[in-house]
Amino acid sequence: MAEKFSFEIIKTDPETGARAGVFHTPHGDIQTPVYMSVGTQATVKGVLPKDLKEAGSQIVLANTYHLYMRPGHELVKKAGGLHRFMNWDRPILTDSGGFQVFSLAKLNNIRDEGVWFNSHIDGSKHFFTPEKVMEIENALGADIIMQFDECSEYGVDEKYAARALDRTAAWLERCAAAHANPEQALFPIVQGNFFADLRLKSLEYAKPFAKHGIAIGGLSVGEPKPLMYEMLDVLQPALPVDVPRYLMGVGSPDCLIEGVMRGIDMFDCVLATRIARNGTALTSKGKVVVRNAVYKEDFSPLDDECDCYCCKNYSKAYLRHLVNAGEMLSSMLLSLHNITFLNKLMRDMRQAILDGTLAEFRRAFYAKYGEN
Amino acid sequence: MAEKFSFEIIKTDPETGARAGVFHTPHGDIQTPVYMSVGTQATVKGVLPKDLKEAGSQIVLANTYHLYMRPGHELVKKAGGLHRFMNWDRPILTDSGGFQVFSLAKLNNIRDEGVWFNSHIDGSKHFFTPEKVMEIENALGADIIMQFDECSEYGVDEKYAARALDRTAAWLERCAAAHANPEQALFPIVQGNFFADLRLKSLEYAKPFAKHGIAIGGLSVGEPKPLMYEMLDVLQPALPVDVPRYLMGVGSPDCLIEGVMRGIDMFDCVLATRIARNGTALTSKGKVVVRNAVYKEDFSPLDDECDCYCCKNYSKAYLRHLVNAGEMLSSMLLSLHNITFLNKLMRDMRQAILDGTLAEFRRAFYAKYGEN
Repeated sequence: MAEKFSFEIIKTDPETGARAGVFHTPHGDIQTPVYMSVGTQATVKGVLPKDLKEAGSQIVLANTYHLYMRPGHELVKKAGGLHRFMNWDRPILTDSGGFQVFSLAKLNNIRDEGVWFNSHIDGSKHFFTPEKVMEIENALGADIIMQFDECSEYGVDEKYAARALDRTAAWLERCAAAHANPEQALFPIVQGNFFADLRLKSLEYAKPFAKHGIAIGGLSVGEPKPLMYEMLDVLQPALPVDVPRYLMGVGSPDCLIEGVMRGIDMFDCVLATRIARNGTALTSKGKVVVRNAVYKEDFSPLDDECDCYCCKNYSKAYLRHLVNAGEMLSSMLLSLHNITFLNKLMRDMRQAILDGTLAEFRRAFYAKYGEN
Repeated sequence: MAEKFSFEIIKTDPETGARAGVFHTPHGDIQTPVYMSVGTQATVKGVLPKDLKEAGSQIVLANTYHLYMRPGHELVKKAGGLHRFMNWDRPILTDSGGFQVFSLAKLNNIRDEGVWFNSHIDGSKHFFTPEKVMEIENALGADIIMQFDECSEYGVDEKYAARALDRTAAWLERCAAAHANPEQALFPIVQGNFFADLRLKSLEYAKPFAKHGIAIGGLSVGEPKPLMYEMLDVLQPALPVDVPRYLMGVGSPDCLIEGVMRGIDMFDCVLATRIARNGTALTSKGKVVVRNAVYKEDFSPLDDECDCYCCKNYSKAYLRHLVNAGEMLSSMLLSLHNITFLNKLMRDMRQAILDGTLAEFRRAFYAKYGEN
């Protein structure tokens, strides 16, 4: 069973604990640290899979809640599974839908047994249990599947956070018992909100189930960044060493850097494609809001250090025109660029870990990128 | 001057007058008959240029009215011209904006001198004259540029149609006088609404200016198809033989076939990409409305005779999911497919002309495609 997945650490940075590794999965190897592109509804918005590969994406995320709602996990299974359905032959990870049930859907009733909620699409009533979520994730067939968890909001009190944590721990046991497919690696999720002792307690619950990897959830949910880093600092010494560590929902360039420097191996975030659709690019010199008048006659590429299809072929003036004209191509080109940018950032960090130059890399990056 | 453009007729079908040819232009050869993809705002909606090439597109259209409004022809000129601005190194044709001024904008005042109108974007007031339009098209720098014309609506009386025709003829002379760039071929436009004698009169006006090509405008504007074919039948014997003939705004599969069989060499239409964005595909077995419930569990490709990226990699069930989920990828994949389909239809017709099998081709096509 364990042979389908294994994690090789090539080098650990002695100063920070940052790791350069390779995660072997049934659909291929993932060089870590890695940023995972988000394809919630079985498509990374605006990017063809062939271009996603060209952009350097090694793995994509899809969402259990969304795909259960539409088109339904049974249909995806009949289609031959998610890889075939969405034409992505590299690794896939499915989120458990826990976060969406608690944030996107209309919550009805949280019980130890599971959660009643109403669909955000048509209001229909549904009941998710750990067993149900495993059934869905097994049907979807991603390489990496997440446990069903309760992600408590930023700002709840310790008592509520503790209860959510306990529920998450109990659900983990039930997920592990219900999950049977050795082709899929189940990752437990560490919760505990912003209480250090709860985080460590949650980690202890999760550890016995962290055979192939472990995730940290419930961060980047509205808190100040220093608070997120503090939680990562609390967890780092206690995290299992021999499996990949995944920081969920985190993906701005600075958070990726700070996460890697705290021993995180995997990240995902909708930021790259979401801001692309709003006309914003991530570049080595910081964010570029393409609509700004200053780019009207700027015939240079978005980022002269980038070799993506967008930067090789288009000027900021053209991209600005597309944004102003409401043309879909702007979302397509900016998504492609932003994903390429984050993938390159991760590759560069990996190389810096291997070269022992991570601190310099970080300094040089911020010096150019700024603090935005 | 003439050497920049030349038209070679490889074969003319003796039965119908359909022609297989090659149109040599400064940005490369165009195998005719040809369907031209429409990139109104300097982008074919939802398709990257590299994929457009893979789909077999030889030339794209852009629109003078739209690009004058946004981002402005001066800006495009500063960017190095339209080819460089939009990253398309094959031939480009610009429409004159006549059709848009008379259909999209709020018309203010039509005079012999030119047309006052209000922008459909911000209501601002503008004046287009033949000279102004030539200035814009020269700045944009397409290989083929269209004269400024008045396209009268379907249903106007003969008197109005005659006046519009005279204006179009007078504007043609002024366009020809104002146009000076030998790198760009100016095409006159035959108008005359649905009056056979006016059509022939307009053609006589146009002929002396048809050095590199000639266009037929004002068809496919809401009339029954047989009426359009009747007008083409009236014109065909009188059209110049040695230059490409372009039927403007026409592009449904049946109209492409009927046009070719009446000696037309060039076509353009937004249909392929517009219906793609509404979730409709053109296939060898007729139109497929992807949203239909019958495709829910249809794991076969859109068209098993098509080798486009969409048909090679995706099922109807997946495309239906994308349409239902409102995902941009559906527009992207269906646009790519529809353009590939029309390009292949034209290539197949060209081959049938060369093989002397055009009548059989037509029969076989309709037998499978149906009449929709």
